[in-house]
Amino acid sequence: MGHNGMEIVDMFSMQPIGYVRSPYTDSKQIPKGLGVKHDAEGVLEVLTEFEAGLTDIEGFSHLFVIWAFDRSEGFDLVVTPPSDNKPHGVFATRSPRRPNPIALTVVELISRDRGRLRVRGVDMLDGTSVLDIKPYLSSVPPERLRRGWLAEAEELSAVKR
Amino acid sequence: MGHNGMEIVDMFSMQPIGYVRSPYTDSKQIPKGLGVKHDAEGVLEVLTEFEAGLTDIEGFSHLFVIWAFDRSEGFDLVVTPPSDNKPHGVFATRSPRRPNPIALTVVELISRDRGRLRVRGVDMLDGTSVLDIKPYLSSVPPERLRRGWLAEAEELSAVKR
Repeated sequence: MGHNGMEIVDMFSMQPIGYVRSPYTDSKQIPKGLGVKHDAEGVLEVLTEFEAGLTDIEGFSHLFVIWAFDRSEGFDLVVTPPSDNKPHGVFATRSPRRPNPIALTVVELISRDRGRLRVRGVDMLDGTSVLDIKPYLSSVPPERLRRGWLAEAEELSAVKR
Repeated sequence: MGHNGMEIVDMFSMQPIGYVRSPYTDSKQIPKGLGVKHDAEGVLEVLTEFEAGLTDIEGFSHLFVIWAFDRSEGFDLVVTPPSDNKPHGVFATRSPRRPNPIALTVVELISRDRGRLRVRGVDMLDGTSVLDIKPYLSSVPPERLRRGWLAEAEELSAVKR
């Protein structure tokens, strides 16, 4: 049911605004699991036609990168992530097998050279399609953040170590 | 140029996983500009077919909601946001007129009733298409965050007041 109560399907068509240059060419190389820190450096290569959209972006220390899980097909509603041995709803995880193959990563902006953004914190494969870039503005205060099953899985994993 | 060096255009087709119920029916009603706090309550109504994807989501205090600017058409590479009087690149702003009409909001999860998530912090119009929901996991430490032109505009605005 659409928002106006009729049986409609609103489809949205997205295309890359650029591509990621990353040290990772195989998803097995990307660190996964508990307590993983992503500090790999990479480059967001924004297509020349969209370069003017980056004006003033160098003033921001961190960016949201919205990208496509372009090497993932199909989806599961319930998944068992690498950081736990229990299944969880896909919307409570970062699994690539989602109804819409949209991924989100916060990166630190190191420098900009025209359409090339050097960033730290990439967890994408080389050649991944970038759909959008937004400034990262504010944070949720740590004392107000609850991290659900992930916090439990971390505690269990700490006991096991 | 695609990631493999050939002239390809990778298109991604997205469809709603649900819709937002919000107090806002006109974009003029949505608070915009500097220092705006979004504490309006709303509901994310996830379609029945995707409801199982919400399993365990109630353990998270905050969620990323990725949604579509479904009442925006076309894009500008340089825009003047309501919070400043100077133009900035669209990727350094939250303008709805983006190459891909993707929006991102962090909301606080109040409660869940099956496919209905009651949340605080909506800034979407009633009936907006939701594309994805992800757990909000961690924050950038405030002392490491720079907020570019927005910080400058805020300072100017404070002087003016």
